[in-house]
Amino acid sequence: MKRVAVILSGAGVFDGSEIHEATAVLLALDRAGARVTVAAPSGPQLHVVDHLRKEPAAGETRDMRVEASRLARGPVADVKDLRAADFDAVVLPGGFGVAKNLCTFATEGAACTAEPATAAFLTAMHDAGKAIGAACIAPVLVARVLGNRPGDKRPPVRLTIGGDPGTAAALEAMGARHVPAAAHEVVVDGEHRVASTPAYMVAERISEVFDGIGRLVDEVLALC
Amino acid sequence: MKRVAVILSGAGVFDGSEIHEATAVLLALDRAGARVTVAAPSGPQLHVVDHLRKEPAAGETRDMRVEASRLARGPVADVKDLRAADFDAVVLPGGFGVAKNLCTFATEGAACTAEPATAAFLTAMHDAGKAIGAACIAPVLVARVLGNRPGDKRPPVRLTIGGDPGTAAALEAMGARHVPAAAHEVVVDGEHRVASTPAYMVAERISEVFDGIGRLVDEVLALC
Repeated sequence: MKRVAVILSGAGVFDGSEIHEATAVLLALDRAGARVTVAAPSGPQLHVVDHLRKEPAAGETRDMRVEASRLARGPVADVKDLRAADFDAVVLPGGFGVAKNLCTFATEGAACTAEPATAAFLTAMHDAGKAIGAACIAPVLVARVLGNRPGDKRPPVRLTIGGDPGTAAALEAMGARHVPAAAHEVVVDGEHRVASTPAYMVAERISEVFDGIGRLVDEVLALC
Repeated sequence: MKRVAVILSGAGVFDGSEIHEATAVLLALDRAGARVTVAAPSGPQLHVVDHLRKEPAAGETRDMRVEASRLARGPVADVKDLRAADFDAVVLPGGFGVAKNLCTFATEGAACTAEPATAAFLTAMHDAGKAIGAACIAPVLVARVLGNRPGDKRPPVRLTIGGDPGTAAALEAMGARHVPAAAHEVVVDGEHRVASTPAYMVAERISEVFDGIGRLVDEVLALC
């Protein structure tokens, strides 16, 4: 039984984890018989967005881990307590929370920094040769953490965010190689053991997201 | 193309719509090619629950429709603006929000009252012979609205909430007939055009929920 960590950043596309993508990850892992640990960093989201009006909700704060537990409907570990030795793989669904809470990509682009506990866990997983899966915008976090690592002699990690030119250029600026992909496609870098799929960066229908993420999870488990 | 309303009550199992169930409904409707309108009543949830600690979050309020838009990741209509003539079916995912926000079942049991706009829409749909689908705890709302209707000469509407004896007894007290079912099963009442499935009332895995709700949506569309 593969042991897989799923790292969330809240519950809602505009300020946390994209709900359909995160649910698709949990469904695919359950169908594959994986043992899942849902985790999120403790601490406030960058902000709270009123998803109906698509504007920031003034004066409101929400905690990443508390909101992630809505998605998990069960225990959510603190990312700082995860140890790479306990896992075979980690999967990162998308949502703006990745670019707002798990790193500062939404405000700083290729000059972003990653949330320290999340960066430490992803680095430890990569060092240990564990598999990493990323959907939607989450490859920017992977590029930030794995790109241009001193001492890593491998070619740049290959990732996809679909096709958006600005985001693709930012990935490359952080030391990754961008590979265009459609919603149902997965880009697999066997050397780095990293797989990615565009999900809602490209998809227009929820069924495309479930199809692409289903394949992503299959590829991640095959990389273990 | 079948036109289907999906009525939500928030985003989170303990104070709103159950996220996996609602997502499963949206996925199955998309795969079936239905045209979906997500709706929720406007107004505050009964309360906000910290899903990590599983206790009420003091001093916080959230609006049903605003939170539902996290799940919809797009427009969410106000239930009071829905007209039965515009739809072929309505589907109600579960989550405690059904029993806390869409009716008062969580606090008043079989003596509960239904949220007026939701009750009016469900009544109009039933009167017009449109199909109704309900998952998890949502059949209590259906029983409240459709049970013991004056002038309805049909036998009591047949519904399932799985097997919980107290909830089953409450359904019957409201004028429905309870039929036990497993997570992958759907109870179909062809005369009332109502289908229901237990989802997380019984299911222990997210894949069981997607299987049961996939079948529920198939049956609802077949009833149209």
